Amino acid sequence: MPTARPNLDPAIAARLKRDPNGLVPAVVQQYDTGEVLMLAWMDDEALHRTLTTGRATYYSRSRGTLWVKGETSGHHQYVKAVSLDCDADALLVKVDQVGPACHTGERTCFHNPLATTAQGETS
Amino acid sequence: MPTARPNLDPAIAARLKRDPNGLVPAVVQQYDTGEVLMLAWMDDEALHRTLTTGRATYYSRSRGTLWVKGETSGHHQYVKAVSLDCDADALLVKVDQVGPACHTGERTCFHNPLATTAQGETS
Repeated sequence: MPTARPNLDPAIAARLKRDPNGLVPAVVQQYDTGEVLMLAWMDDEALHRTLTTGRATYYSRSRGTLWVKGETSGHHQYVKAVSLDCDADALLVKVDQVGPACHTGERTCFHNPLATTAQGETS
Repeated sequence: MPTARPNLDPAIAARLKRDPNGLVPAVVQQYDTGEVLMLAWMDDEALHRTLTTGRATYYSRSRGTLWVKGETSGHHQYVKAVSLDCDADALLVKVDQVGPACHTGERTCFHNPLATTAQGETS
């Protein structure tokens, strides 16, 4: 379960739309190159810590705990900017990623291309 | 409920890890500038159509139906590439976005910055 009594700014907490588990998906992007590094999940306390410590912090759904990215791997994410989407149910976290973002050692987690049989025309 | 009897390639369907509602989050990125445009959701049939028609197609959780981005607004997304993440539970869809991605008229849905009180150091 997400953290009880989170410290998140009440003005942000009031806007945030969480899933039934109290979580919001966070798209993580390298701030300068624009690479999408990973998709992670935040509860209110993870968002609070991400906004106030400068280190990207997520909620691990498999372990059921908060998780400072890089705390074991050293592959920290230094937070540059955070924004909320129009529906207040998704976050975009721009970071400076130290080393690979993916636990496999790849730079980004999105390293498995799927074949497309129709290439979209360019507008 | 997601589409019954989807046409998705069985090899992809076997890899995909869906949430309890049968959905996978899809990060949508402008292919050339790297802007993150929106976060949407796909069921198997939406992913099949995205991979085979060249037009980004999602599953609308509020309406409970498939939704071709731009079908009413004209703000289509021409699909350039699709990839699956390391855990097979998130998608990255690179598109060429016609006009604004957001229903508010903003270019991207992530147009609400949240204040950070500690700026991450650059590695």
